[in-house]
Amino acid sequence: MKKSLIASTVLLASSSLAYAEAPKNIIYMIGDGMGPAYTTGYRYFKDDKSTKYVERTIFDELFVGLASTSPDDDTVVTDSAAGATALSTATKSYNGAIAVDTAKKPLTTMLQIAKSKGLTTALVATSQINHATPASFAAHNESRRNYDEIANDYVDVKVDGKLAVDLMLGGGTKYFIRDDRNLVSEFKQAGYQYVDDFDKLESIKSLPALGLFSDVAFAYAIDQNPTRLADMAKKTLSLLDNNKRDGFFVMLEGSQIDWCGHANDIACAMAEMDDFANAIKHAKQYVDQNPDTLLVVTADHSTGGLTLGANGHYSWHTDVIKGVNASITKIAKALMKSDHLLTTWSDKTGIKLDKSQAEQLAMLTASAKSEKDDEHKEKEALVKHVRQLISDASNTGWTTGGHTAIDVPILAYGKGADAFKGHLDNTEIANQLINYIKQR
Amino acid sequence: MKKSLIASTVLLASSSLAYAEAPKNIIYMIGDGMGPAYTTGYRYFKDDKSTKYVERTIFDELFVGLASTSPDDDTVVTDSAAGATALSTATKSYNGAIAVDTAKKPLTTMLQIAKSKGLTTALVATSQINHATPASFAAHNESRRNYDEIANDYVDVKVDGKLAVDLMLGGGTKYFIRDDRNLVSEFKQAGYQYVDDFDKLESIKSLPALGLFSDVAFAYAIDQNPTRLADMAKKTLSLLDNNKRDGFFVMLEGSQIDWCGHANDIACAMAEMDDFANAIKHAKQYVDQNPDTLLVVTADHSTGGLTLGANGHYSWHTDVIKGVNASITKIAKALMKSDHLLTTWSDKTGIKLDKSQAEQLAMLTASAKSEKDDEHKEKEALVKHVRQLISDASNTGWTTGGHTAIDVPILAYGKGADAFKGHLDNTEIANQLINYIKQR
Ligand SMILES: [Zn+2]
Ligand SMILES: [Zn+2]
Repeated sequence: MKKSLIASTVLLASSSLAYAEAPKNIIYMIGDGMGPAYTTGYRYFKDDKSTKYVERTIFDELFVGLASTSPDDDTVVTDSAAGATALSTATKSYNGAIAVDTAKKPLTTMLQIAKSKGLTTALVATSQINHATPASFAAHNESRRNYDEIANDYVDVKVDGKLAVDLMLGGGTKYFIRDDRNLVSEFKQAGYQYVDDFDKLESIKSLPALGLFSDVAFAYAIDQNPTRLADMAKKTLSLLDNNKRDGFFVMLEGSQIDWCGHANDIACAMAEMDDFANAIKHAKQYVDQNPDTLLVVTADHSTGGLTLGANGHYSWHTDVIKGVNASITKIAKALMKSDHLLTTWSDKTGIKLDKSQAEQLAMLTASAKSEKDDEHKEKEALVKHVRQLISDASNTGWTTGGHTAIDVPILAYGKGADAFKGHLDNTEIANQLINYIKQR
Repeated sequence: MKKSLIASTVLLASSSLAYAEAPKNIIYMIGDGMGPAYTTGYRYFKDDKSTKYVERTIFDELFVGLASTSPDDDTVVTDSAAGATALSTATKSYNGAIAVDTAKKPLTTMLQIAKSKGLTTALVATSQINHATPASFAAHNESRRNYDEIANDYVDVKVDGKLAVDLMLGGGTKYFIRDDRNLVSEFKQAGYQYVDDFDKLESIKSLPALGLFSDVAFAYAIDQNPTRLADMAKKTLSLLDNNKRDGFFVMLEGSQIDWCGHANDIACAMAEMDDFANAIKHAKQYVDQNPDTLLVVTADHSTGGLTLGANGHYSWHTDVIKGVNASITKIAKALMKSDHLLTTWSDKTGIKLDKSQAEQLAMLTASAKSEKDDEHKEKEALVKHVRQLISDASNTGWTTGGHTAIDVPILAYGKGADAFKGHLDNTEIANQLINYIKQR
């Protein structure tokens, strides 16, 4: 049974709003996997405990509604490809679809419409730039796994004879410079400035430009650069502002909130939320300075079945989470390299272990170190144990390594933001944005 | 460190709104434990699969915002007492507090203010009427567990010399007719009509009135009367409408959404959500007919760490949940009484078991039947197994038998509803309602 968008008076009402209020610039931000447990948790995580109040976050300030995310079937739970396809084309499709419908026919994306209307266009992500979410704005493929084909589309799928995306920043060099095809050369031939070192982000002076800063994805925010998305957001808005003639459309993704969720890694998730929050602050500031701009922030789905509290205890320990300063994978690696196991553990997590926990950690670390085969079973057991220690100490709950169906937050700010209030389907968010773009 | 309400411009903004738009009647509905996973899940649970669209529910139609729920400490996770105290007095307190502050000093509730302003007042619940949520509107106690003292307060804590609540409907006879005190007689002496049989609900002809329909709480909606809250809501609004001179204030609680959540019983939760949804529909209809009325619906917290999808599978099987027609406890009891175990299982759940699942069910049922001591360990093992079979078949996730800290939905409709849009703290919801009541 096909399920596309919800028949609703809201959709009609918001469509009529469009004509009066179409913004010149659209900043669309997607927190991959950012369900309401993430925005709620982030507030408590950031709370300044020296004050009497729980401080409002940028997510609270700009919050206007919730969106349903189910894909085009009865599974209810979407993946990032179907989710991004809905958010970029206003059409429900199947899990895995990159801007194609259930018949695998290409769907025109809002970025492509924006380009055809003369808007400057940009895609920014902390994943490889050809990963599901950005891909669904400028490529078409029956499967999100066809990374090479998706990267090819960024050159091959033209709008009015031109490349569709004027600025791309993210990871993914290995998909762009391949034995069979060098897309970077092709971008350069098309006049793009190319930068491959994040430290040289500021050397991008004008559009069009391509920045690929990692072989595949960026490292987690908690492990390397905690502000890489915020930095790219700031730079992107500055470049778009310098370049804008007829306005711009940009999609920025907080790609790895989802990945920390898949890893059931709460400290990792909070660091990604922080980077995303700082990126949103840059976007809000741009809107404040350019009131003809619309900022819309949402998520494609929630990841991990995250719950704030678990196991019957009425508490969620943000102080524990704040003490963890590396991703679970990095902690496990550090333990395996360490000659002073408990010191390393304490440095990386701040979590006190009782005698039996310490003994088990030592045992599992030794097993992981001695692992000879390629199956990584012993290493996985160590990772699992580290995860459990952090989840137990912080009383964080997880139910899955995949996604769940809970509705996701919508934030909106600036010109035309009123159309996103209340409960919408994810296709209705896209439909409203497409309406605005079509006014141009 | 004390945490009361969030300092916010929203609060100030909504306060100024109050003066222009104070409604005559206020219908306040609390879905105990109803986090966003419940409202999301209910939509998919109710979806008519023969249509192309996922139908919007009453929760979607009236959705305007999300509320934070943390209590007055750093635990982040609230219980129903602190939650209801925040929602009734605009003051954060400790878990267990019934309309008292952290110094255990009584806090004036919005119901008491309403009564002092000449409004007719009512409390309706499917729990005992002296349970935490309704209690926090008309009683004051340092502990939610002092059920007798709380029931006493309904007679003893007067407003301007009069009993504070003009209509109470719920369970709890055992707390009202006791060896040491007969509160029902006292209510009668104060002029209240008393009804103790739910079938005679319609025999209540005027206020004041007291209806106690169960020794403690009502049975679960899924096990007995699926519309008992909706029926009481309809009757209550009719009685208040007949009686209103200077308007009314009523709090209606969907008490047992929380209890199904504690039991990690998804079919039970969906039946409670359905009863609550139907009660909201009656309330919305009343607002449509009486536009000087405000309807606000929210929750005190989320329960159970419910997630829609679990264990890595991208699916949530509403068809399985629809096939379950009894609570987990009732299913376990039915199995223990049955001579045809698999027929009973199939009748109650519709879930197909493989050979090993069927064998385990037979074994655990036999153990539970033969249990001699009072510890109920064997019976609990059976209940746990039934729960697991239903959770696995529907791919429902749970992380706790307690509560979690995720923000909860706010619905608002009618006069003055605009003040509840966006993100609010639970105390801000109460503060706004109190502002409205004080205008009267
Ligand atoms: Zn994902
Ligand atoms: Zn509860």
